[in-house]
Amino acid sequence: MSNPKALPLLEEGSAAAVPCCPPLTERPLSAEEAERTAKMFKALGDPVRLRLFSAVASHEGGEACVCDISDVGVSQPTVSHHLKKLKEAGLLTSERRGTWVYYRVEPSVLAAMGQLLVPATTG
Amino acid sequence: MSNPKALPLLEEGSAAAVPCCPPLTERPLSAEEAERTAKMFKALGDPVRLRLFSAVASHEGGEACVCDISDVGVSQPTVSHHLKKLKEAGLLTSERRGTWVYYRVEPSVLAAMGQLLVPATTG
Repeated sequence: MSNPKALPLLEEGSAAAVPCCPPLTERPLSAEEAERTAKMFKALGDPVRLRLFSAVASHEGGEACVCDISDVGVSQPTVSHHLKKLKEAGLLTSERRGTWVYYRVEPSVLAAMGQLLVPATTG
Repeated sequence: MSNPKALPLLEEGSAAAVPCCPPLTERPLSAEEAERTAKMFKALGDPVRLRLFSAVASHEGGEACVCDISDVGVSQPTVSHHLKKLKEAGLLTSERRGTWVYYRVEPSVLAAMGQLLVPATTG
């Protein structure tokens, strides 16, 4: 699917949240690594945020505005609040176009988080 | 590496936490799916728990007791508390052997969580 406009990979304030680390099964994380990485897991550790995240991630074209994903049983200000938290954790980027702010999943962060959870090859 | 004793894949109380769901990029999660899955992300959303989890996951033989992983700067009761939380979330299993309780990462849960974070193939 074509991306009508290139988005910056990460916006200001979110760079500190980029995953840094090898798979969790490889070596113990340092305090600093854990601090960074826990932020992202925490952002997905709320059921409403997780639903909103999957709604954005699975929306046509890989992006969605608040108007597209308001069917999670909470008010629109609450939706906006949770989207802001996901953005602060570096999981979503956003762009204003006209009336609406469009949210998009940060694929590199998603891939890096997935890599953290790769099981060990030896038990 | 050989596993000296077969462990049950999941212990009582943790079955409800087994991931259920397709990649977050595939379709929006239902409320019930998000409730289950958010618990696991939340368990890894604390820096101390994340360090303990990576300490267990990367320990020789894939398992560790509290005695092996007490160097994260918190007291042993706090370590035990966090390990209990990880167990309740279905991320660790435990087994008492002699004086110590040994913790082991649940590889199927780890793999399923990793699958949730697979980026979409189309943007």
